Amino acid sequence: MMSPQEQLERIKFGVAEFINDEEMLKKLKKGKPLNIKFGADPTRPDIHLGHTVVINKLKTFQDLGHKIFFLIGDFTAMIGDPSGKNTTRPMLTREEIEENGRTYAKQIFKILDPEKTEIVYNSTWINKMTPTDIIKMSAQYTVAQMLERDDFTKRYKSGTPIAIHEFLYPLTQGYDSVALHSDVELGGTDQKFNLLVGRDLQGAYGQEPQCVLTMPILEGIDGVNKMSKSLDNYISVVDTPKDMFGKTMRISDDLMFRWYELLTDITASGLAQLKADVQEKRKHPRTVKVDLAKFLIKRFHSEAAAQAAEDEFNRIFVEKGLPDEVPDFVVAPEAQVGLAALMCKAGMVASNGEGSRLIQGGGVQIDGEKVSDPKLKIDLQAGQSFVIKAGKKKFIKIVVK
Amino acid sequence: MMSPQEQLERIKFGVAEFINDEEMLKKLKKGKPLNIKFGADPTRPDIHLGHTVVINKLKTFQDLGHKIFFLIGDFTAMIGDPSGKNTTRPMLTREEIEENGRTYAKQIFKILDPEKTEIVYNSTWINKMTPTDIIKMSAQYTVAQMLERDDFTKRYKSGTPIAIHEFLYPLTQGYDSVALHSDVELGGTDQKFNLLVGRDLQGAYGQEPQCVLTMPILEGIDGVNKMSKSLDNYISVVDTPKDMFGKTMRISDDLMFRWYELLTDITASGLAQLKADVQEKRKHPRTVKVDLAKFLIKRFHSEAAAQAAEDEFNRIFVEKGLPDEVPDFVVAPEAQVGLAALMCKAGMVASNGEGSRLIQGGGVQIDGEKVSDPKLKIDLQAGQSFVIKAGKKKFIKIVVK
Repeated sequence: MMSPQEQLERIKFGVAEFINDEEMLKKLKKGKPLNIKFGADPTRPDIHLGHTVVINKLKTFQDLGHKIFFLIGDFTAMIGDPSGKNTTRPMLTREEIEENGRTYAKQIFKILDPEKTEIVYNSTWINKMTPTDIIKMSAQYTVAQMLERDDFTKRYKSGTPIAIHEFLYPLTQGYDSVALHSDVELGGTDQKFNLLVGRDLQGAYGQEPQCVLTMPILEGIDGVNKMSKSLDNYISVVDTPKDMFGKTMRISDDLMFRWYELLTDITASGLAQLKADVQEKRKHPRTVKVDLAKFLIKRFHSEAAAQAAEDEFNRIFVEKGLPDEVPDFVVAPEAQVGLAALMCKAGMVASNGEGSRLIQGGGVQIDGEKVSDPKLKIDLQAGQSFVIKAGKKKFIKIVVK
Repeated sequence: MMSPQEQLERIKFGVAEFINDEEMLKKLKKGKPLNIKFGADPTRPDIHLGHTVVINKLKTFQDLGHKIFFLIGDFTAMIGDPSGKNTTRPMLTREEIEENGRTYAKQIFKILDPEKTEIVYNSTWINKMTPTDIIKMSAQYTVAQMLERDDFTKRYKSGTPIAIHEFLYPLTQGYDSVALHSDVELGGTDQKFNLLVGRDLQGAYGQEPQCVLTMPILEGIDGVNKMSKSLDNYISVVDTPKDMFGKTMRISDDLMFRWYELLTDITASGLAQLKADVQEKRKHPRTVKVDLAKFLIKRFHSEAAAQAAEDEFNRIFVEKGLPDEVPDFVVAPEAQVGLAALMCKAGMVASNGEGSRLIQGGGVQIDGEKVSDPKLKIDLQAGQSFVIKAGKKKFIKIVVK
């Protein structure tokens, strides 16, 4: 087992915020496995890489010998939003929660060891609370403290109603830490307030307060915005190996190092070494990016799939002289579209005629294969994508959606 | 049974606020006994006349054939103030609550008919609520609505902490109306917010909302301030007949009519008649006040006690030519105090010498009995009181405390 100081360094690598070193060292010095809590939202079981940043940190704790509690917040999920105003809080049935729980588990166990992870449902203890227990729990927090939470502050100031039960949700979430005797709770930076409630409640219930660790938000493949489904800049953990590889290869070098930090098991010194190797041209950035892509595919699929994806990529892009980054052009599914017209629509040529002439002259390739029929028609099928090369330098990836 | 319109007039006589006529008439027109709710605070079982204003209105409802639910708020009383900051909310044991409940019942049953009054404890239904029930209840009210309650507004603005559970108390109190299927809830004007919560919650739970009736605050015997123990301007329902009589005789004529309105079973037309009789000198105000005092003594003691108190009053004050209103002079218990010195201290004479000479000249009486010894010494014992008459017009009541 690593020394407490070494463990602390591993734990803090890549975090957004950590509260706090002193208490954590004290806990680690006991030399016993600590209880590590992570609360999952069972209403959204389909996770993308952004969601795995915290799971990845849980794996660090697991590798260090600590015990992971993967908490499904089913108590609130089964209630939904009783005011009926918040559509982001659907009311789930017992069956839906269990189904979502299984889906979630299947995904996180690509990263975590199921043998060392305990999946717990907070309804187990919350439903046992008496009205008196709830009153006593609520007495530990003030209205002013609760209104300090960012979203509550904004809503209160703008006159957007906050129903009283919304004040009880962070409290039940905090009470979960009491029930689990949590030593450390992890979450995204947006969860900091809730994690601190757990810390405060533990103190009020006479327990040693948990440490609080928040992980930064992961930028999506655009390198700018938070990874999210709505921005379509995400990689889902159930994406195909081919998609994972292709999307990863398109990220910038800066983002590549960021993803290494937040999505792999690299250490601080390992990352510094990698950066130096690229900086001093001992390694080509593309090779480092390929390794990242393969790490992700290996994690969520298999080693074989990672190798196959690399081979496929090399066949299409590297061997055929395609650049690393090809801009997307999204089109709707359609049958029998003329290639020349498609090239014109995508802005690769000025007119259908120019497109036809270019094809006739042998200057057009699809996925590295030369096209010869100037009247070629293509069926654009949803989910399909291919790269058109026009002349020597123009590349566009047609993505059919 | 009276017509709905006649009942409504009886009900509304003397109220501070009533919400609202239309709904009440609709309820009364059903021709069935209505459920009338009154919530008592079991932490303060010793009541004075100020507290009986609402009980007196409950009696009106009872006389009209409706059903009274006298609700002991034991759920919250057994919790007390979990934050430990509010000393006005002591935590009571089951035994203390039942003892206080019995004390309370004994006092209110001087006014209400026990056969037609149901004493209920809200722990009966509140303790059966599940955490989900509490969440759903809390979802019916917003933080902004709750902060509109006067005391919460003030505390929030001044930065005085409001613990979250304090938001749950008005809700449980409101839920009591749901549990009782209350048709009307009564309270003091300071309870209006809480009574409205009950009305709102009933609506949210698909019930016909209760009407809300608030009674004004009763002025104490000084005619100015709210009757309260701390101001020592109160008549307790367990005061002796003699004290009740004496204190009532000292109130102003204006206050006398106010007390008739709020503390007796007089009707609107009866009160108007009484005022006219005094105005037009068909009745002497003192006679009207004697009737009020006797009504109160009869209610809280007995008819015989009322008559005895009047006889005693007549013996001391009327037959001995004492005025109705004699100012108090409060002194501490002390042995062997010179009467002349006491008169000087009370401001009846300018010096001990003047006092002695006045006694010697036969100008001083105690409780109507002439004093002749200029060197008379008196033992002032706690609880004792007597009237000193000096000369023809000066009267002072010495009250030993």
